[in-house]
Amino acid sequence: MTPTLGQTILDYAAALAHFSDMEDGLTCAYLTPAHSATQAQLAKWMADAGMQVRIDAIGNVIGRYAADPSAIAPKVLMTGSHFDTVRDGGRYDGRLGILLPIVVVGALHAAGIRLPYHIEVVGFAEEEGLRFKTSFLASSVLAGHFNHALLDREDADGINMRNALSAAGFTGAGDDAALRDAAVDPATLAGFVEVHIEQGPVLLNRGLPLGIVTQIAGSSRFQVRVEGLASHAGTTPMDMRRDAATGAAEMTLLVESRCAQVPTLVGTVGQLQVPNGSSNVIPGACVFSMDIRAGEDGIREAAIADILAGIEAIAQRRGLSARVERVTPVNNAPCARWLMDQFGAVLKKRGLEAFELPSGAGHDAMMMQRITDVAMLFVRCGNGGISHNPLETITAEDAQLAAETFVDFLRHFRTTD
Amino acid sequence: MTPTLGQTILDYAAALAHFSDMEDGLTCAYLTPAHSATQAQLAKWMADAGMQVRIDAIGNVIGRYAADPSAIAPKVLMTGSHFDTVRDGGRYDGRLGILLPIVVVGALHAAGIRLPYHIEVVGFAEEEGLRFKTSFLASSVLAGHFNHALLDREDADGINMRNALSAAGFTGAGDDAALRDAAVDPATLAGFVEVHIEQGPVLLNRGLPLGIVTQIAGSSRFQVRVEGLASHAGTTPMDMRRDAATGAAEMTLLVESRCAQVPTLVGTVGQLQVPNGSSNVIPGACVFSMDIRAGEDGIREAAIADILAGIEAIAQRRGLSARVERVTPVNNAPCARWLMDQFGAVLKKRGLEAFELPSGAGHDAMMMQRITDVAMLFVRCGNGGISHNPLETITAEDAQLAAETFVDFLRHFRTTD
Repeated sequence: MTPTLGQTILDYAAALAHFSDMEDGLTCAYLTPAHSATQAQLAKWMADAGMQVRIDAIGNVIGRYAADPSAIAPKVLMTGSHFDTVRDGGRYDGRLGILLPIVVVGALHAAGIRLPYHIEVVGFAEEEGLRFKTSFLASSVLAGHFNHALLDREDADGINMRNALSAAGFTGAGDDAALRDAAVDPATLAGFVEVHIEQGPVLLNRGLPLGIVTQIAGSSRFQVRVEGLASHAGTTPMDMRRDAATGAAEMTLLVESRCAQVPTLVGTVGQLQVPNGSSNVIPGACVFSMDIRAGEDGIREAAIADILAGIEAIAQRRGLSARVERVTPVNNAPCARWLMDQFGAVLKKRGLEAFELPSGAGHDAMMMQRITDVAMLFVRCGNGGISHNPLETITAEDAQLAAETFVDFLRHFRTTD
Repeated sequence: MTPTLGQTILDYAAALAHFSDMEDGLTCAYLTPAHSATQAQLAKWMADAGMQVRIDAIGNVIGRYAADPSAIAPKVLMTGSHFDTVRDGGRYDGRLGILLPIVVVGALHAAGIRLPYHIEVVGFAEEEGLRFKTSFLASSVLAGHFNHALLDREDADGINMRNALSAAGFTGAGDDAALRDAAVDPATLAGFVEVHIEQGPVLLNRGLPLGIVTQIAGSSRFQVRVEGLASHAGTTPMDMRRDAATGAAEMTLLVESRCAQVPTLVGTVGQLQVPNGSSNVIPGACVFSMDIRAGEDGIREAAIADILAGIEAIAQRRGLSARVERVTPVNNAPCARWLMDQFGAVLKKRGLEAFELPSGAGHDAMMMQRITDVAMLFVRCGNGGISHNPLETITAEDAQLAAETFVDFLRHFRTTD
């Protein structure tokens, strides 16, 4: 193999990082100018790599590297990940899973190699939910699970998704039929595989460059609104207060302490705010988000039950009300053993450990798992495993190894039938 | 006395409450259209009550009810309060201390009564600090303690005070000389008295309509910025997190528990926010305000020392940094015994208790105390003593009693010389 595949992947990621909604960091929210520029660049690289490129009604960039002409009724092996980011995020999250297959397909193309199936590389337009508080938006269209009501959802500036699509140049923006047509026929798929940076410290701590994902952890998200009574900060004695912020603070610490009880369990209050707070007014309201995940659905659900009961008890004791809204509960998505084994065989042939680990983060593969078998290849994450942060990093060596592994996987790939 | 003074005061407050920055409640931030309309209405009522009216360079409305022509070198007894509000605030906070003197002067004027000194009624344009995070902005100009650097301070929309003054029609907006000229010569003042709703439950609980303030509690305000490390909510184990929000939550509860230890001590986290938080990202930063007050400077300072040490300890233990910025520390302002005694004599003559109490809230009198002797008359606050809230209320009977007491005070007022 070309020894420069890894470096090319890193260079591509660096080039994409220049398209950003912010000045000193990488933010690529759905349908912004930076997002359109990223989309166009991906399309160009796909075309350069010998793929036929289309952009679907939600903004996914899909490149097809056609099967060998001799193949009979070839199926599609789909691979890809998302190219949007969180605010001030990392440049590999999502994008690695698009750029690596592009580079790998480019190498196959240069070598004149065709395979007995079609490869489709998907750049999913939206996964993080930054702009419209959705999740798996783009993959839900491909999987035929799109919720059309989302088209009327507004971003922080009051622009709804329909108008955002229109402003980004999508003719017939938000057209229901076009969005339905963008769904893939599951019968045509051989499976979906996703390469992704681990976004955690497990491979790093074990000294392993690559890992095979066993399952993608389900997550439960909530929005909580605590209400108390706004009153004067100078004249209301401490024991007469109904302070929504101190109540929310206690609930935040409850999420933390309960989730620390089980190793695979995590709980995060990522959004926390006293709306329109003033320094001299006791908060009458406080809103926060909760995101709770675990390797097992049962562990997650037990924690949620305890936390919801605890929130209610805290609210009662403090004379507050707490309204809890559950958003997008997602169950664990298992990876397909037959796909995992094909990755495992390739790794072993290279003398690497076929190490298996669960994914704590959600991924597009989670949505695709609803219509086809999926697998994921994790690449080691540097800097202590940090992600959703500019410090997120991988090495060129690991990227090279992942690319070579992916080539081997493709060349030996056999469908179940 | 006219038995309708109290009702007129309530009617005036209701009329002013129609000028608001929000639809279903009262917000009157500095230099908004609602603020200008309030200012203009106050000027009209002052003129109707027989006063000469001027508006100074920061927006204060000042009405002078001239002394009896026979008075020799009359001094000025100044009275007043602020007409700006907190967000979704009450209609009596501040405004009662402008409307009551207007109504009282109107009654004196109607009866043809002149006094041996000038009365100046001041509607202070800004006290709450809602728009520019200042405090005592308007009274600081009158007291000659204005910080001219504030003119460049920006509101949440990035509009600085200079431009906001200009937009509100102030010619020569923010002109340094004009702002300096707006200061009162302390030698001309006989004192400053302020009528104010109590904003607390003390008078209500004791069944007293009026109280005499002994001192205005100092307050210390801080802005705290906690920084940790943003990382992925799904993949970062609980024990590897450096979560700024859980750190801030623990600090918020520390403020609450420490301030609950002493009866006259209060501490409030009124603003609390994870800037640009996402539900799936561990907060890398969290900002909050702290407002700490006590009846005695020593109690306040001891609490502050403990809280600041506690914040540092929490930050250290959690691997966070906490940057604490101290904003506008204000020491306790004592009221003048000779003025308090003149109020006390009037109350006793009416058969009322001359009840004395400290003020937990800050008031314009606090700034005026830097240049002259001050006193404050508190009026009972209904609804459990709630303020900074639409539920804030007083009765027409209490307003009437306060107005009559104020008339008596003015008629018997003697300066120290």
